Amino acid sequence: MTIPPPDFAQPRFTGFPDANFAPAPADGVLPDGFFSTTNFPTFIRVKGRWVAPREPRMDSALVLDRDGVVWTREGRRVARGDMVAVGDKEDGSQGIFVQTQLVPHGVDPDAFTFMSSEVSREKPIDYAHMARLLIEQKEGGGYPVWVTGPALVHSRARADMSWFIANGYVGALLAGNAVAVHDIEASIYGTTLGMTNTGEITQGGHGLHMRAINRVRAAGSIAAAVNQGIITDGIMYSCVKYGTPFVLTGSIRDDGPLPGVITDMLEAQDAMRVHAIKATMAILIATALHAIATGNMLPAFVQLPDGNMRELPTICVDSSEFVVSKLKDRGTHQAFGVVTNAQDFMHILRLYVERELEARALARATPEPAAR
Amino acid sequence: MTIPPPDFAQPRFTGFPDANFAPAPADGVLPDGFFSTTNFPTFIRVKGRWVAPREPRMDSALVLDRDGVVWTREGRRVARGDMVAVGDKEDGSQGIFVQTQLVPHGVDPDAFTFMSSEVSREKPIDYAHMARLLIEQKEGGGYPVWVTGPALVHSRARADMSWFIANGYVGALLAGNAVAVHDIEASIYGTTLGMTNTGEITQGGHGLHMRAINRVRAAGSIAAAVNQGIITDGIMYSCVKYGTPFVLTGSIRDDGPLPGVITDMLEAQDAMRVHAIKATMAILIATALHAIATGNMLPAFVQLPDGNMRELPTICVDSSEFVVSKLKDRGTHQAFGVVTNAQDFMHILRLYVERELEARALARATPEPAAR
Amino acid sequence: MTIPPPDFAQPRFTGFPDANFAPAPADGVLPDGFFSTTNFPTFIRVKGRWVAPREPRMDSALVLDRDGVVWTREGRRVARGDMVAVGDKEDGSQGIFVQTQLVPHGVDPDAFTFMSSEVSREKPIDYAHMARLLIEQKEGGGYPVWVTGPALVHSRARADMSWFIANGYVGALLAGNAVAVHDIEASIYGTTLGMTNTGEITQGGHGLHMRAINRVRAAGSIAAAVNQGIITDGIMYSCVKYGTPFVLTGSIRDDGPLPGVITDMLEAQDAMRVHAIKATMAILIATALHAIATGNMLPAFVQLPDGNMRELPTICVDSSEFVVSKLKDRGTHQAFGVVTNAQDFMHILRLYVERELEARALARATPEPAAR
Amino acid sequence: MTIPPPDFAQPRFTGFPDANFAPAPADGVLPDGFFSTTNFPTFIRVKGRWVAPREPRMDSALVLDRDGVVWTREGRRVARGDMVAVGDKEDGSQGIFVQTQLVPHGVDPDAFTFMSSEVSREKPIDYAHMARLLIEQKEGGGYPVWVTGPALVHSRARADMSWFIANGYVGALLAGNAVAVHDIEASIYGTTLGMTNTGEITQGGHGLHMRAINRVRAAGSIAAAVNQGIITDGIMYSCVKYGTPFVLTGSIRDDGPLPGVITDMLEAQDAMRVHAIKATMAILIATALHAIATGNMLPAFVQLPDGNMRELPTICVDSSEFVVSKLKDRGTHQAFGVVTNAQDFMHILRLYVERELEARALARATPEPAAR
Repeated sequence: MTIPPPDFAQPRFTGFPDANFAPAPADGVLPDGFFSTTNFPTFIRVKGRWVAPREPRMDSALVLDRDGVVWTREGRRVARGDMVAVGDKEDGSQGIFVQTQLVPHGVDPDAFTFMSSEVSREKPIDYAHMARLLIEQKEGGGYPVWVTGPALVHSRARADMSWFIANGYVGALLAGNAVAVHDIEASIYGTTLGMTNTGEITQGGHGLHMRAINRVRAAGSIAAAVNQGIITDGIMYSCVKYGTPFVLTGSIRDDGPLPGVITDMLEAQDAMRVHAIKATMAILIATALHAIATGNMLPAFVQLPDGNMRELPTICVDSSEFVVSKLKDRGTHQAFGVVTNAQDFMHILRLYVERELEARALARATPEPAAR
Repeated sequence: MTIPPPDFAQPRFTGFPDANFAPAPADGVLPDGFFSTTNFPTFIRVKGRWVAPREPRMDSALVLDRDGVVWTREGRRVARGDMVAVGDKEDGSQGIFVQTQLVPHGVDPDAFTFMSSEVSREKPIDYAHMARLLIEQKEGGGYPVWVTGPALVHSRARADMSWFIANGYVGALLAGNAVAVHDIEASIYGTTLGMTNTGEITQGGHGLHMRAINRVRAAGSIAAAVNQGIITDGIMYSCVKYGTPFVLTGSIRDDGPLPGVITDMLEAQDAMRVHAIKATMAILIATALHAIATGNMLPAFVQLPDGNMRELPTICVDSSEFVVSKLKDRGTHQAFGVVTNAQDFMHILRLYVERELEARALARATPEPAAR
Repeated sequence: MTIPPPDFAQPRFTGFPDANFAPAPADGVLPDGFFSTTNFPTFIRVKGRWVAPREPRMDSALVLDRDGVVWTREGRRVARGDMVAVGDKEDGSQGIFVQTQLVPHGVDPDAFTFMSSEVSREKPIDYAHMARLLIEQKEGGGYPVWVTGPALVHSRARADMSWFIANGYVGALLAGNAVAVHDIEASIYGTTLGMTNTGEITQGGHGLHMRAINRVRAAGSIAAAVNQGIITDGIMYSCVKYGTPFVLTGSIRDDGPLPGVITDMLEAQDAMRVHAIKATMAILIATALHAIATGNMLPAFVQLPDGNMRELPTICVDSSEFVVSKLKDRGTHQAFGVVTNAQDFMHILRLYVERELEARALARATPEPAAR
Repeated sequence: MTIPPPDFAQPRFTGFPDANFAPAPADGVLPDGFFSTTNFPTFIRVKGRWVAPREPRMDSALVLDRDGVVWTREGRRVARGDMVAVGDKEDGSQGIFVQTQLVPHGVDPDAFTFMSSEVSREKPIDYAHMARLLIEQKEGGGYPVWVTGPALVHSRARADMSWFIANGYVGALLAGNAVAVHDIEASIYGTTLGMTNTGEITQGGHGLHMRAINRVRAAGSIAAAVNQGIITDGIMYSCVKYGTPFVLTGSIRDDGPLPGVITDMLEAQDAMRVHAIKATMAILIATALHAIATGNMLPAFVQLPDGNMRELPTICVDSSEFVVSKLKDRGTHQAFGVVTNAQDFMHILRLYVERELEARALARATPEPAAR
């Protein structure tokens, strides 16, 4: 379902002025009264025309460049003298309009209903719908961004994740050091944190992840470790083998880290941003931190070539309602929550994608009747 | 804040007909098309007058008695031939009107905001407000119904709960067999399920709750065990000593049960109903089952003597967002969720009640200035 | 893996006396010092012989009948004058021996390890193992008891559960009124609590479960409603059609209830007990209350025809670690926890059973080589 | 309770050799077979003497310096040619001994008991014990490290945390950017993420945390913002005012960040390490990431001046059992879990500390009787 942009020819918009801009007083410091962005479709009036700022995201400023183009920029990336939009109204009266009421309510929100919560383990999970979305992304040249936490690896969804990478469903993988560490330990030693793939603890296994890290550090990079035959399967192996871009970002609790992990958070945000601005779908699995980080960088709606907008499908998978709820509480309202185990989610999603592909292949192979 | 009933003199109501009634075809069987109630304020047109059915609750039928009075009745309690309201519209057009839009939205629900979830451990808990509510209940002759799960006893909030009973803040206590069993084990043996009040497991302690039950069965009743000095403190002791009514209902996983526990669920619902129809406030702590059971029996709004309505304050305390969310998903939308540990909730709530009482006592003791 | 019973010919047992028995002082009241059972293998010395009490379960008494047989009996079922074992030692010194150290520790429990928690969403789920267990149960004439909560129905695992019933993997189904209500609402109206199978809320849908209940009450029984074509698919339909026994027990928060639901909890426990004493495996899905109820009635080990014992496989599936942990805290230590969504669990478990059956069929169809 | 070090004069130790060391092949790369540390007391045999490596922590290497001192070092901090202990046995047979069986089991771990789980919301919380521990830390010159997540600030425990800082119970505060951002938003605007301290959402409030960050960035530092009167109360204010050291570390989802936040994770770990090696107690509240990060850096036992060891008291507070369990699964086995809301924990802990101080003051003020 697509949503048209507002019709700015309507009378209610015609009296509104151009937005005001004020210079940033110092590098990384915004002028007083700066406009703080959301992830909703936003339009700003510049020289009489309403334009959509580029690279939209929340919690940022709107900066007018010398060519008259408006960019969405984190405050830290604003330089002294940059012209920054000011205003605190979102209704257009200060030249900035934020589009709301995008998703129609099917049911009177004030009526008595059961099951009205936004996220619950008691709600059905529509895997068929998600499978179709992913296939459409692949066929339509979309850029689905996958963001995963280490539970994906602990819980042995490595094979399924590798399948999605190998089959072209992953535009980019955004994760932390731990995902790669556990994945590589599993490839080299068959364990994660010393636990076997049937959940047995191995005596002395507590050092295996450190040994895995050390092997890769000795090889010099993850790609080198793949090429030298040290890492022979799994998520990182598949990314290297199929050329799927990945960003590994550091965190304060990391062991190692592995070579290639970006340890400076601002540098890491910039590296994630490269993929976030291209994203046409987001799948966030078993991670609160990276899910919120990515949600912060994504617009809730992507602009289509024809100027219309479409909600950016955002799936958030977690064992607890709390993580999905927290992601929404941090502004990623478009997230659709799936309350389940990461291993099971991956397994069933792959199964439904395979079924849908078979059904489509069969439909193509079957000659259609001449007339109905 | 009170809400007036609808003004049925308004033109939009004047064309509406009386409600239709059809006879129940058999005992406990409703006629086709019966109207199914909610916990929202409901009005039914009988002989040209809009009246509020008595003893309102959700998931029930509306039954017209011979005196022209309309009662809210569970289907199982309807007898063959009883006249039952039929209709599936809630807008008055079939003579039944359900009042919605009762709680004004402070913020545009479509606007971008953070922290918009209904229930979250990250939200502040307004103990001062809850303390004032409880004191007003006591002073205003209210009937606050407390519904508790066994975690309250495991977690050693026994003393605080006893204080609330002793000091008149409990209209009635609704609980299951387990609450009483753990409470009585704690009084007799100092443990709950063999665990001491600092959390230590005692060897052989697994039989202590069975011994506690056996002692009370031998005494004949909980009251007898109190009177014989077997039970010397705690929740059940305080109920007996201060004459606070309690209903103990059985469940499928009960040991014993204790004498006085109502093991038939329909009989037990009827016993709870006696208190639910008098309730002016509900405090639901650490129990999904009994909280939902009670929520089912409560109207979301109580009618005041002047005909206006006030939301029935309903506090639901649980360690997880899920239980509160589930209660709302089962229709108790008015529930205000507190995500915390039951022991801590009880301790702080009591503290705030004591502080508020001291502040009020101090204010009364201080002579007011002659003029301001 | 089987475990032999203790060798009572060993010197450490030879000095031990027969157990003492004392008469119950009243109906449903045990003598002072009664022995309280656990779910561990238990042996009692009667006339010089160590025997295993029949129908073992926890939280009960041991009663010697006139034929010299020892039965495990809930206190409420003991009659005045029944001879009840007394003692508080479990080491045999009072004629009662409880066998511990049944499950060998693979790893030094004092060593430093990661991932040593008992239940965690981060642990792998061994579906292949569970599928093999279920197939062995079916082929070996086992009696797997399934215990389910309503989330199974909300989340649309109805079709998978029906498949397990239809294909002979369910010895008996133990559930509450709500499971049947939601299942039947889904069959008649395509919704559960008014929510469609893709999670949409329907306006006015809040009454549909009441209409479903009323239809069955009008029909007289669930079986009648199936036979009259009112209920045409789903869990209850399959139980009726395939003759799978089920016990529906009431609870305090029930609507209706449906005909056939046992509303008296003691009667309901007795009805569940009929199946619990035959159980050779237990699968507990998305229910705390019924899982604990069933766990209470099950021995942790079943005695094989040869006198050896085998752990009773007990799988507990829930979205939160807490429920599994609580089940263990209530004594069902043998439970193996699966932290996932009920819908996903059912779907994958069925898939693995189907795969295993295909692999076995293929293996049988393939002629073995003449010699290896 | 203190634990003596092993008696290495015992015969079982006398045959053991010195540990082997091998040079690191490159900067940040350990030699094959390196010994990987745990947080248990560890002793290494160097020139015939068993010594405890300095700055103990898990997941690290043991490095022998030129003076014969053994240090615990993260792999990344090891330089080419550093002599690193090798070995995979922890029983002393390779010159490295890890002490286990430190905590005696009170109850036979194989016996049947209820409530045997390690972490549960159903267990009592011993605030009196924790309060005494904290007072002893203060009086005994301890260095309690507090590690907090943003829920502490959302949930309005700011005042209580400030009290602990002001009264000398905080050796150092370790937190992330978000804690400081919310705390400062609360000081300047009275909201956190636009939510008031009674949980109301404010229209347009979504930008307030960005404005708070911008104010501090304009001021140049948190201390400058305090000194300029921009920040007038709260956690960061108290740290600045009372000179309590704090480390703010960045994360991938940060807005801003605030000046002073360490954005490089390796640098940030080094900054935290400065405090971790001095820690004599740890209080970890409502944060998984920082709790695990800190747990990784802490020994489970601290060495006392007399050579004996004492468990490092580690309290982990979270709303869910999962976070505490995860911390233990990552090796911080000594953590004592408190399953509650952060706001409530802080409030009651402070209350118990105040009560204990009053009781001690009263005891000191009361003249002791001449004879007992």
